[in-house]
Amino acid sequence: MNLRNQVESFLRDKIPLATAMGVRVVTLDPLAIEAPVALNSNHLGTAFGGSINAVATLAGYALLWLALHDDPSVRLVIAESSIRFLRPVRNTIRAVCGRPEESLTTLKSELAAHNRGRIRLRVRVEEGGAPAAEFEGLFVAIRSD
Amino acid sequence: MNLRNQVESFLRDKIPLATAMGVRVVTLDPLAIEAPVALNSNHLGTAFGGSINAVATLAGYALLWLALHDDPSVRLVIAESSIRFLRPVRNTIRAVCGRPEESLTTLKSELAAHNRGRIRLRVRVEEGGAPAAEFEGLFVAIRSD
Repeated sequence: MNLRNQVESFLRDKIPLATAMGVRVVTLDPLAIEAPVALNSNHLGTAFGGSINAVATLAGYALLWLALHDDPSVRLVIAESSIRFLRPVRNTIRAVCGRPEESLTTLKSELAAHNRGRIRLRVRVEEGGAPAAEFEGLFVAIRSD
Repeated sequence: MNLRNQVESFLRDKIPLATAMGVRVVTLDPLAIEAPVALNSNHLGTAFGGSINAVATLAGYALLWLALHDDPSVRLVIAESSIRFLRPVRNTIRAVCGRPEESLTTLKSELAAHNRGRIRLRVRVEEGGAPAAEFEGLFVAIRSD
């Protein structure tokens, strides 16, 4: 199984809501995941804010899974997040998370030194290339030996 | 149909993800909604952060639906939100949103004067009475005559 399928399986097999939302991993670099508004609509027929936030959160998990899956003793959790909604999403929720190389290096150093590290990830949600939401999440990685 | 069933139907009929998450409206005052972790689990077997955030968002919508549903020309959207996760949720996600009377009065005055108003809502997520997450959302109500 290629890496794109592996990370998509991680999301869909481990997090049932990812399947309910129809989440797909589209590209790995930059990490982009998508979900159709048809499965994630709200009372106005546009994307539900809770779905947009969840897809952005999954993009963060997926990026960290790609960076850290070589070590199965590392657990990932989210500590806090914030999101600003800029415009309605009408067809496809697309969340893009660039690889923050410097922050990932720091995270791996913290994990090596203290079995625990933190990283702040920014995720851009867009439709048709236009920004639709800005998400920021603080994730924690913990190694349990 | 009583008011509890009406607001639950609003959530479940208009927002398919609410049904996928198994959301139920438990009480109206304070507004409390719940969803089972069984439908909202993550890679660690606890509640997915995206689900916790979505349930809290739905609590905000439900509270505003109760306050404003007499006027069907009012649309509700969420502008921004933030959440802090305090501890894992293992069985039931429970989101509680108290009725902020003063803010609701201001919102209704703004709607009457400008056909548009904003309100900041705090939602407490808990399990077994212990706080599990703190959510704050800025919602916008727009009257389209």
